[in-house]
Amino acid sequence: MKTTITKRVTFCAGHRLFNPQFSDEKNLIVFGECANPNGHGHNYVLEVSVTGAVDPETGMIISLKDLKAVIDSEIVSRIDHKNLNLDVDFLRGLIPTTETLANKIWEILDARFAGGMLTRIVLWESENNRFEVTR
Amino acid sequence: MKTTITKRVTFCAGHRLFNPQFSDEKNLIVFGECANPNGHGHNYVLEVSVTGAVDPETGMIISLKDLKAVIDSEIVSRIDHKNLNLDVDFLRGLIPTTETLANKIWEILDARFAGGMLTRIVLWESENNRFEVTR
Amino acid sequence: MKTTITKRVTFCAGHRLFNPQFSDEKNLIVFGECANPNGHGHNYVLEVSVTGAVDPETGMIISLKDLKAVIDSEIVSRIDHKNLNLDVDFLRGLIPTTETLANKIWEILDARFAGGMLTRIVLWESENNRFEVTR
Amino acid sequence: MKTTITKRVTFCAGHRLFNPQFSDEKNLIVFGECANPNGHGHNYVLEVSVTGAVDPETGMIISLKDLKAVIDSEIVSRIDHKNLNLDVDFLRGLIPTTETLANKIWEILDARFAGGMLTRIVLWESENNRFEVTR
Amino acid sequence: MKTTITKRVTFCAGHRLFNPQFSDEKNLIVFGECANPNGHGHNYVLEVSVTGAVDPETGMIISLKDLKAVIDSEIVSRIDHKNLNLDVDFLRGLIPTTETLANKIWEILDARFAGGMLTRIVLWESENNRFEVTR
Amino acid sequence: MKTTITKRVTFCAGHRLFNPQFSDEKNLIVFGECANPNGHGHNYVLEVSVTGAVDPETGMIISLKDLKAVIDSEIVSRIDHKNLNLDVDFLRGLIPTTETLANKIWEILDARFAGGMLTRIVLWESENNRFEVTR
Repeated sequence: MKTTITKRVTFCAGHRLFNPQFSDEKNLIVFGECANPNGHGHNYVLEVSVTGAVDPETGMIISLKDLKAVIDSEIVSRIDHKNLNLDVDFLRGLIPTTETLANKIWEILDARFAGGMLTRIVLWESENNRFEVTR
Repeated sequence: MKTTITKRVTFCAGHRLFNPQFSDEKNLIVFGECANPNGHGHNYVLEVSVTGAVDPETGMIISLKDLKAVIDSEIVSRIDHKNLNLDVDFLRGLIPTTETLANKIWEILDARFAGGMLTRIVLWESENNRFEVTR
Repeated sequence: MKTTITKRVTFCAGHRLFNPQFSDEKNLIVFGECANPNGHGHNYVLEVSVTGAVDPETGMIISLKDLKAVIDSEIVSRIDHKNLNLDVDFLRGLIPTTETLANKIWEILDARFAGGMLTRIVLWESENNRFEVTR
Repeated sequence: MKTTITKRVTFCAGHRLFNPQFSDEKNLIVFGECANPNGHGHNYVLEVSVTGAVDPETGMIISLKDLKAVIDSEIVSRIDHKNLNLDVDFLRGLIPTTETLANKIWEILDARFAGGMLTRIVLWESENNRFEVTR
Repeated sequence: MKTTITKRVTFCAGHRLFNPQFSDEKNLIVFGECANPNGHGHNYVLEVSVTGAVDPETGMIISLKDLKAVIDSEIVSRIDHKNLNLDVDFLRGLIPTTETLANKIWEILDARFAGGMLTRIVLWESENNRFEVTR
Repeated sequence: MKTTITKRVTFCAGHRLFNPQFSDEKNLIVFGECANPNGHGHNYVLEVSVTGAVDPETGMIISLKDLKAVIDSEIVSRIDHKNLNLDVDFLRGLIPTTETLANKIWEILDARFAGGMLTRIVLWESENNRFEVTR
């Protein structure tokens, strides 16, 4: 029996999808309307899941407040209301697709939770498109 | 007894909120993190409501397909995956808040539906913030 | 200050949209894929709103249980898991669009609530299409 | 053309529905399982709508930040994670149904917004039950 | 670290649940109101998940556009606005429960994605009932 | 290929989080506003997932009606509209966090489904906080 706690947070950001090594034509073929030069943006939803034993003294794996504090300081404060191409250090030099953003969020949070406690993150870029990272 | 049909569509766009006649400091006070120079973005949800008599031959006020076609050609095609500050003709010279976007969408659609049939539009910029225009 | 109570219920049903006085070709033009001869169906969501004074003895306009009982007996029991073209007495001879279904639901419920207490019904046929009847 | 801004917030609270002047039997008939002596609770969703002119200097009716600050200080801070029967001054002596809570929230907020700007509040006690106050 | 992309699509269809080898009485016991002879229907939500490496040139596992095109041509175009008992080749001779529909969708899509990339499909028939197929 | 059926139900309950062996001060630090002496409450959403073979005679793993009957009799009837600290036998002596409630629900349901058919339960206490138990 494994118990997992999941915290959901939201943020919004702008981005433009293009590879500077591609021609404009190829960028349009690969990225479609997401290659629009002036960029666009999304409301993102992020779910972070941590698995572990429930402490009988508190009835908790980790407090929701502490979990939210980590997500806010490590992730949300660095990307909320930002431009993912220009404003975010950990995306420098990368194409800021939601797949890539999800992978980087996983790497940052996995380093903060000891013993492989982080077991899943899910990142929605719209109600119809989402991305998930698991161990 | 009044019958109203409502079509819901979604789009995404980027924007930055600032008044060029304000100082940077004042922009930050008025618009907060929305004034971030490199912009951010949202997934928007738009609902368009048309009120009228149900035609007994078709059981419809207006066909959902026709209603969607008007919304797509007049609105969605001009703002989806666009930068609202730079790419949208009908927002030129305006601060692209969601209030202002909602008002402009109303004006455009109201001109397309004869006899005051357009009775409400609702525009969400996030799950917690929405704007509504009625007659 | 007006106070309104709204109850939300769900049901599912099958239907086919066509006018027997139209040619097959015209039915296809008017109703599109909804004219498919073997029919299709939907999950519907119905919201019923009643406006009135709050009784200080109970803190209620009408009890949610009583409101649900009326909706279930008058509406849901007659259309849930039914074929709207064939199984529903109050739709006999009508094209079972959601507009028409909404109007008939309004008529039935309006007769059950004295003094114009019924103030709105909303009927969704999908997450993107809904219909509303008001006084 | 009227433009309305709506802010959505959430809170949770406990309550018990009973009228101390009713017998236990009558409380059970009127309030059903909501009369359970040890109480229960809900997650509530509150939407507050303010209607007014859009200021061309800011593109806003009122800033979302200011609107949220009023809702938080006047309402959420007084009822979130509270027992509505015991902990809330403005419900003292009342049966804390969601109708009554909605009416009291309206009275408090209407006093804070000049010139009848407050035009609607909606209060959900569950995904199927909601209450609305309008002018 | 495994990265998964999920695309959500919707469609609607009609069906009737019954086993022609059962008596009417047994069909009613087993399938309840779903055995209603004239059928009913649902709005379905389908989520398709594909797991794989993120291509550093594009930042993608597979493009959302390509993923949607496969789902639309292989699945949605064959069942949307259709009667699952009568109109769908791959359900011929089967009882069109949502379990069975989910299993057939899995088989069709699994054959289209090389190397076991398809890792999960989820199929909702209503907000309270869903079915999932995994490897 | 594994097929899983999931049933979603909702209930509401009251609770207070505190450890009687902690000082008031420590309870406030550990449980925050959830330690409020008069308690609060939530709307909970519970999803129960059962994995198994689809019976070709019925097209089902287990009927949704039977699955719901088990969840209602074993779980919902014992906690809906109840106070989790005072009214629920299987939580006696425990701190009624949602983690602990989820674990107890798992234990009760796992004993009712032979052969490890129960594969996941998910329990939401709010739209942003959820807990999951798997084998």
